[in-house]
Amino acid sequence: MKPYVYGIDIGGTSIKFGLFNRQLQLEKKWEIPTNSSNNGESIFGDIVDSIKMHTPDLSQIEGYGFGVPGPVLKNYVQMCVNLGWKNVDLQDRLRDELKNDHIVVGNDANVAALGEAFLGAAKGRKNVAMLTLGTGVGSGIVVDGRLLEGHNGSAGELGHLTIPQEQPIACNCGKKGCLETVASATGIRNIYHRLNEDFTGHSTLYDNDYVDSKAIFDAAKAGDKLAISVVDEAAYYIGYACHVLSVTTDPSVIVIGGGVSKAGEFLIEKVTNEFHRLVFQPTNDTVIVTAQLGNDAGIYGAAGLVKIRG
Amino acid sequence: MKPYVYGIDIGGTSIKFGLFNRQLQLEKKWEIPTNSSNNGESIFGDIVDSIKMHTPDLSQIEGYGFGVPGPVLKNYVQMCVNLGWKNVDLQDRLRDELKNDHIVVGNDANVAALGEAFLGAAKGRKNVAMLTLGTGVGSGIVVDGRLLEGHNGSAGELGHLTIPQEQPIACNCGKKGCLETVASATGIRNIYHRLNEDFTGHSTLYDNDYVDSKAIFDAAKAGDKLAISVVDEAAYYIGYACHVLSVTTDPSVIVIGGGVSKAGEFLIEKVTNEFHRLVFQPTNDTVIVTAQLGNDAGIYGAAGLVKIRG
Repeated sequence: MKPYVYGIDIGGTSIKFGLFNRQLQLEKKWEIPTNSSNNGESIFGDIVDSIKMHTPDLSQIEGYGFGVPGPVLKNYVQMCVNLGWKNVDLQDRLRDELKNDHIVVGNDANVAALGEAFLGAAKGRKNVAMLTLGTGVGSGIVVDGRLLEGHNGSAGELGHLTIPQEQPIACNCGKKGCLETVASATGIRNIYHRLNEDFTGHSTLYDNDYVDSKAIFDAAKAGDKLAISVVDEAAYYIGYACHVLSVTTDPSVIVIGGGVSKAGEFLIEKVTNEFHRLVFQPTNDTVIVTAQLGNDAGIYGAAGLVKIRG
Repeated sequence: MKPYVYGIDIGGTSIKFGLFNRQLQLEKKWEIPTNSSNNGESIFGDIVDSIKMHTPDLSQIEGYGFGVPGPVLKNYVQMCVNLGWKNVDLQDRLRDELKNDHIVVGNDANVAALGEAFLGAAKGRKNVAMLTLGTGVGSGIVVDGRLLEGHNGSAGELGHLTIPQEQPIACNCGKKGCLETVASATGIRNIYHRLNEDFTGHSTLYDNDYVDSKAIFDAAKAGDKLAISVVDEAAYYIGYACHVLSVTTDPSVIVIGGGVSKAGEFLIEKVTNEFHRLVFQPTNDTVIVTAQLGNDAGIYGAAGLVKIRG
């Protein structure tokens, strides 16, 4: 095996590059802006240029792993709305320029889960699931050390798990009541606005010009009743999603990442309590933890993908 | 490879034996009663005796696959309440008597899913899930042609998926509101008794001394309003479970088996409609079908296990 591996996380705003040694230790990282104009055609050249600029000798690179924001099946990118891509074969597009056949691709949320399983909060565990609670909700599932892709690349789409609720909110996907509408940063604001309608007391949140999910968590930690009721409801939904992951794929660790996870133990404890109310007893040893790699989970997981898809 | 394979399905009432050729065609099958007294200790000898009686030459047998009613991890049986077994290593118990090291074991519902994926309703598919709606609800998930076991053998426990409901019913597992309480044969009767309380019209079901799930399906097919409302509610729960399987493991086929599945297309059409209301659009090509192997799914899947765990 050659001494270096690239892990590259292609997002709608920026492309993150990580150069790793063969022990998957990060040697250096950087990022460039994503240019999604013209159906994202310039992304391929931008990636090649940036790699060449940072790599004196391409023959030292074992392979390149990529995470992309859309469904992927057997290294083939089906659709990335944020990049403008449709039916993209990254191996075909990059092989000649990089002089390398070892190019592997996964969905970004799946790859992040793999990163946490390899080197983050679930280090060394073989059966891991991850929920990334950001602007939306992503998820990834690792089974026996391998990424679960499903029959058409849509495994681990917990963001679009329908949660039976009295007042389901419309989701970008066209459905109503998806986990994403009540457990993402946006979703927590949705719950706040709904509960606020019937709330009769005073809330410290009323002093804010703009109430975001961080403000809600901060107020809840300080004892604000309205904020606590919002967090409790969100924790139930997240705990329910963990239960769904448990009865289907039975992970030993469920990792919670994304901006919402910055609420830390305050959130994890509530989610764990909800999970324990729902869990099938023989598998109640599953633990729920916060992510450790932050925004780097994608590059770590992408590099890991090079190792497992030799 | 030797010319024959055994697939053996150990149930609480009977042990089913199937002798297959190397193309996994069934050559002969039979069953014996299960003797679970004395912590199921005599089961091992009963199995060996029955195999020897039906097999002129044990050296012609490539291997033995087993399905057992409890969680299994890497061929190790953790617990089978119905058999009286706890921490049983079937390889250890049978290797010497059968003069064979190739002894593989899986959970019965998982193994049934594998049977339907290899040779039944989902023949040749690599990503398959199965719900067995009998007295309880079992389930199994096949990913890339392999059984999903999870970190402690509890993957595919959809029977204990909690369904958010207004009046959840107590389950044998100690929780309330499990899928099993509303989607098994018993569960469909539970829904009938609940809906009947508020039903004001006349139902043809009132003419029956005992209302079982078959009577409910027959009455619904004949247009009985109460029976239709029971079946519609059960179909929603089963459709929701299919949705949960879809957003987690993304199978191409979901197989519905067990006694309840005898309701056939009448049920499948309603379940499919509910599933399509909930499905994440990129994976709406998943099909829901009835099982084809009936009570033989277990022996087929157990024989298949010998092939995939070489």
